[in-house]
This record gives sequence, C-alpha cells and structure tokens, in this order.
Amino acid sequence: KKLRIGMIPADGVGREVLPAAQRILEALGSRIPKPEFEHLDAGFEFFTRHGEALPQETVDAMQNDVDCALFGAVGSPTRKVTGYSSPIVALRKKLNLYANVRPVHSITGLDPRPVDLVIVRENTECLYIKQETLTTTEENGKEARATRLITERASKQIGRMAFRIALSRARAGHPAGLTIVHKSNVLSTTDGLFRESVLAAGKENPEWQDEGKIQVSEQIVDSMVYRLFREPEAFDVIVAPNLYGDILSDAAAAMVGSLGLVASVNAGDTFVMGEPVHGTAPDIAGLGIVNPIAAIRSAALMLHHLGYTGPAQDIERAVVEELREGIKTRDLGGKASTEEVVAAIEKRL
Amino acid sequence: KKLRIGMIPADGVGREVLPAAQRILEALGSRIPKPEFEHLDAGFEFFTRHGEALPQETVDAMQNDVDCALFGAVGSPTRKVTGYSSPIVALRKKLNLYANVRPVHSITGLDPRPVDLVIVRENTECLYIKQETLTTTEENGKEARATRLITERASKQIGRMAFRIALSRARAGHPAGLTIVHKSNVLSTTDGLFRESVLAAGKENPEWQDEGKIQVSEQIVDSMVYRLFREPEAFDVIVAPNLYGDILSDAAAAMVGSLGLVASVNAGDTFVMGEPVHGTAPDIAGLGIVNPIAAIRSAALMLHHLGYTGPAQDIERAVVEELREGIKTRDLGGKASTEEVVAAIEKRL
Ligand SMILES: CC(C)[C@H](C(=O)O)[C@@H](O)C(=O)O
Ligand SMILES: CC(C)[C@H](C(=O)O)[C@@H](O)C(=O)O
Repeated sequence: KKLRIGMIPADGVGREVLPAAQRILEALGSRIPKPEFEHLDAGFEFFTRHGEALPQETVDAMQNDVDCALFGAVGSPTRKVTGYSSPIVALRKKLNLYANVRPVHSITGLDPRPVDLVIVRENTECLYIKQETLTTTEENGKEARATRLITERASKQIGRMAFRIALSRARAGHPAGLTIVHKSNVLSTTDGLFRESVLAAGKENPEWQDEGKIQVSEQIVDSMVYRLFREPEAFDVIVAPNLYGDILSDAAAAMVGSLGLVASVNAGDTFVMGEPVHGTAPDIAGLGIVNPIAAIRSAALMLHHLGYTGPAQDIERAVVEELREGIKTRDLGGKASTEEVVAAIEKRL
Repeated sequence: KKLRIGMIPADGVGREVLPAAQRILEALGSRIPKPEFEHLDAGFEFFTRHGEALPQETVDAMQNDVDCALFGAVGSPTRKVTGYSSPIVALRKKLNLYANVRPVHSITGLDPRPVDLVIVRENTECLYIKQETLTTTEENGKEARATRLITERASKQIGRMAFRIALSRARAGHPAGLTIVHKSNVLSTTDGLFRESVLAAGKENPEWQDEGKIQVSEQIVDSMVYRLFREPEAFDVIVAPNLYGDILSDAAAAMVGSLGLVASVNAGDTFVMGEPVHGTAPDIAGLGIVNPIAAIRSAALMLHHLGYTGPAQDIERAVVEELREGIKTRDLGGKASTEEVVAAIEKRL
C-alpha cells in the first residue's frame, strides 16, 4: 500500500516549506504507508507564465490520482489582474473541502498565555464565492457589489464538523465549548441563518446534546476578536463563516509564537489538503530561513484526518520538543535556518 | 450662543454613560457655548414598547434641532426580530455620517505597549446596507444572500478624511502613515475599488502627495489583525471599509486598557455624533459601575470635530491624569463606580 500525496508548493516560501514537510513524512518510515509525492502546478507565478492559476491537470490529479495533498502558499497581487483568481479559493470549492480546521495552541513555558483552541471555518461560501459586479452611476461613479452567500446545507455541514471536533476534545479532557461567531445584529438574514443552522446541526446527534457536554455559546465577530485577545483561554472550538474565520485564525495565531507555527487542513468528506496558515512571505522567500513548522504540522494534521493519529502525534511531539529545546527561526526571534529545523525534527522521529 | 446636543442613550449602560458625559460637558463652563441637552429616543428597548427602533422624531430632531449628538449603546437581539433593525446603523446612513473615527492610544506607564493610532472606518456601505434575501432550493435548503456595496464616491470620501487626519497628525509630529485595509486578493472588484479610490483621493491634494509626508501602505485584513497585535506601534492612521473597520476597532481596543476607554465619532460634512465603542454590557447595566470614560472621550472628540479643540484637550488631559492617578472601574480591574470616575474627572476640569 502507498500513500499518494499531491504537492502544490505554489508561490514564495511555499516552495521551501513543502519539501520540508516531505522530508518529515519520509522520516516516519513504516509508521505510514510509503508516501509517493506528485508535484502539482498552481499559483500566481504559474499564472504569469501560463495564463492560468490552477491548471485542469492539477484538479484532475487531486480528484483521481492522489489520496491527499499539501498546499504551500499563494501570491496575492493587490491590483486586479485580468484573468487571475486565487487557486486556493478555487481548489477548496472544486474539491468541496468545506471545512478549514485550524488548531492554535500555546506551548507551556514558551508562550506567555495559555491558548488551546480550534477554529473551524466554513470554506466554500460567504464572500468567497466571488460573485462581483461593477457598474457606473451618475451619483456614485463606480459601484461595485459582491454577493455573500450563506446556505443552510453548508452551515449545517460545518456545524456538524465543529460539534464532532468539540466532542472529541471533550473526550480528550478539554473543557469543551463551542462558540458560534456571527454578526447577526447587522446581518440578520445571512448570519441569522448561519447561527440557526449550526444550532440545528447540534440537535441532530444526541451525544452533542448531552447536557453539559458541549457548552454552546455565541459571539458577535467584533467582540470575538476583542475577547480572543483579552482571554484566549476562554475559548475551545470556534465555528465561523468563511471571512470571519479567515480573520479569526490570524487573530488566534497572533496569540502564539508566530503565524509560522500555525497549521490547517482543508477537509471534505472524501479528501483532505494540509496548508500552513502563513502566506508567501516574499521578503524572505528563497533565503532558506522560513519557518517550516506550520507546513510540517499541516502534514501531521492531514495524517490525523486520514486516520493515522499515531504518526501525526509523533510529528507534533517532535515539533513541540524541538521548540521547547529552543530552536527558533527568524519569525520567532532566532537565527535557525529551515534546514536546521527540519533536520532537528527529523532526528526526533 | 448655545450648543444644542441631542442625547440618545438607547439601551443598557448607554443610559449611564451619557449622563456622565453630560456632566463633564457642563463642567466645561464658559469654555464652550452653554450646552442644551435634548433627550432623543431610540433603541431595542424602545422598539419592544413602540414597535420602532428609530422614531422619525429623533431623525427630524437630529436634522433640525440640534448641533451635534451623543449616542449611548444599542442592544442587539441575536435572533431575528421581525421589524427590528439597528438604529445606529440607520442613523449613520440617514444623516450621512460617512466616517467613523476611532482613535486608540495607550497611556505611557499604564499600558504595556505603545499604541497611538486612528481607525477611519467607512460608515455607510459595505455589508451594512443590509440588502439581504432568503430563498429555498432543493440542493441547499435555505439560501441567504447579502449584498456588499462599495462605491467610488464613498471610498474617496473616506479616503480624503483619512488623508486629512494623517496630515494633521503629521503636523503634530506623529510619524505619519496611512494603511489601507482590504481583501483585494479575494474581492478584487469591491475591495479593489476601495483601494484604488483611497489611493486616488490621496492624489487630489498636493499636500498629501508631498514625498515622504504621508507614507501610504496596504494590508490584507487578516494580516492587518495579526500585525495589529504583534506590532501595534507600527500603525498610525488605518482606513478600512465598514465591516473590516468594525472588527479592527475592537482589535485595536484590545491593545489598550479596555474597550471601556475607546471613543468614536460618526462624522459627516455637516453633523457629528459621538459614540463610545463599547456595547450595552447587559451584565452590568444599572449597577452604576460602568466605565464612563469612552463616552466622556466621545464627547471630547465631538467637541474637537466641532472646532472646540481647547476644551476637547482639557477633557482628554483630565481623563489621562485621572487614569494615571490609578482610578479603575471594573473593566480595568478596579472597583471605582461610575460616579467616582465622573466626579474625579469633573474636579480636574
Ligand atoms: C490567500 C487567501 C485567499 C486565503 C484566504 O483568505 O482564505 C488566506 O488568507 C488563508 O487564510 O488561507
Ligand atoms: C452595534 C453594531 C451594529 C455596531 C456596528 O457593527 O457598527 C457596533 O459594533 C459598532 O462598532 O459601533
């Protein structure tokens, strides 16, 4: 048996962190089926050369040839570039990777405050459907509109995922709570539907309803960001529509050592794709100094979602040990190179 | 000459902080024209009794009878309540108070990190136009959609306000910078237009263009939240579309003592309304322990916008002195009552 892994480094430091993750997966030896890596193209740089950011071959390979995938990072032009559209947003939608799961936790003794939470972000709709129009009027000059879509189906789906994660954390001894984030005081229809659907999903499974097992609460998104910084320890599982989830995961990442430590998976019912939360970091790309830990942890999360929980824990343990030992790339205020970090984690496996 | 001030306490602690602000304005004596306060109704509680959250008389009075206004806080039902719509959102739009200006600064010796920034939030469009629809489909069950509107006119208008503020801060010796916040990597049309319009506004006035005077930069909203927590001292004036500005102002507030200290004005070309950034705080409403400083500072900001900069500075100076002296309401970890804080600030005027 083999484990076929699609590798989409895309842009910038994505090309350095994916090879790092690959080495760690290889270092697991017989603990997982022999990994086979398939390079797949995508990204802004690819777009500038070939006129498309996500070639059909990549989508086909993801659907037919591989068991799972790792994504690096994608460059974002700030100016509108005709014909360009973010390949990561497209991939999430095309493969129906409806959940973006982002665990953020501090390391005792290293981080100033205890944080141990999981952001469960809806990954396919909200403003990310990218339905935008542009017109011109006498009064306003250019008028741009975007549609924000929230459906009962997708909101329930992400709700179920959040309740499942909350329950498994409860079983692992976490003080289990689920916080639903929305802005229904302004967006009573769209965010009202999100809120209502997540609550309805929670009623589907008797285990989730067990009194006291999962404490469900809500936060308005602006207040959530405030409280996340004031008392991050008060939160466990946070479920949010796409854009709020995007913002909240960066907010949560700011509470721990660095964005360079935070992993995620894009998960659907039949496919999972790991992805570090950080971007392409153009200022340090190519210098061999990027922190590979977010990508390494994303590989571990991916294994976890595939059911290889033992090897996933082995990686996480090795990472935490090494961080406790004091290894630090530039983002953590140190001088270690990408290579040094990978080698050190490899050695601990 | 008189200064006629509309007072809209609305809900919860709004009813305690507005009287506090009134006393401070009265304590200014002859430094400002004699203030005359007119109570105006609005809010969720008013809605439950009268079936409307913002009576037409309030809007009429704002347009005809008063020179400026102070708003307290408004209760937010999380569930959809038929017929209810947030009166603060409606007021901003009806009076074309297109700018929400929120200064956030730390107090040397009290706050752990230096913060001194102003959030300039567009206040009339984005998702706040509340155009929402609800349908049902076979595939998705309920489908809710909201429209996000960004116009060239409103974006330029807020851009000009941001450049004016940045320039006046530059003249006061701040390291002047203007950061445009958007998410144009996903919303290339709407956020692309916002970005482009703010940049275009900056070209209208030769003073704003002077090389090196105002350093213009950009941040993607998620990354902005991350950086705001990692290096708040790196930011000066931040201009953002409505919803991002809403979230960012809570994020910035988390960097200083408490949300109970952060003031704002809703400003248009002919009217200004002060408003503390905090909410109704139902858990402490009516107990006489809410922090009145956000409302008091909002009154000062209002005076500043009306051109009474001297008395505005007097209030701010009195507030900072009293905070340095160590007075603390519950939100700051202390035990002082609302009355004690007001009396202490009054005495310093
Ligand atoms: C690159 C960008 C399109 C993406 C997003 O907004 O989802 C990123 O910020 C993320 O969080 O994965
Ligand atoms: C109460 C709510 C409608 C309001 C907003 O979202 O604008 C509040 O959060 C604010 O920031 O003034």
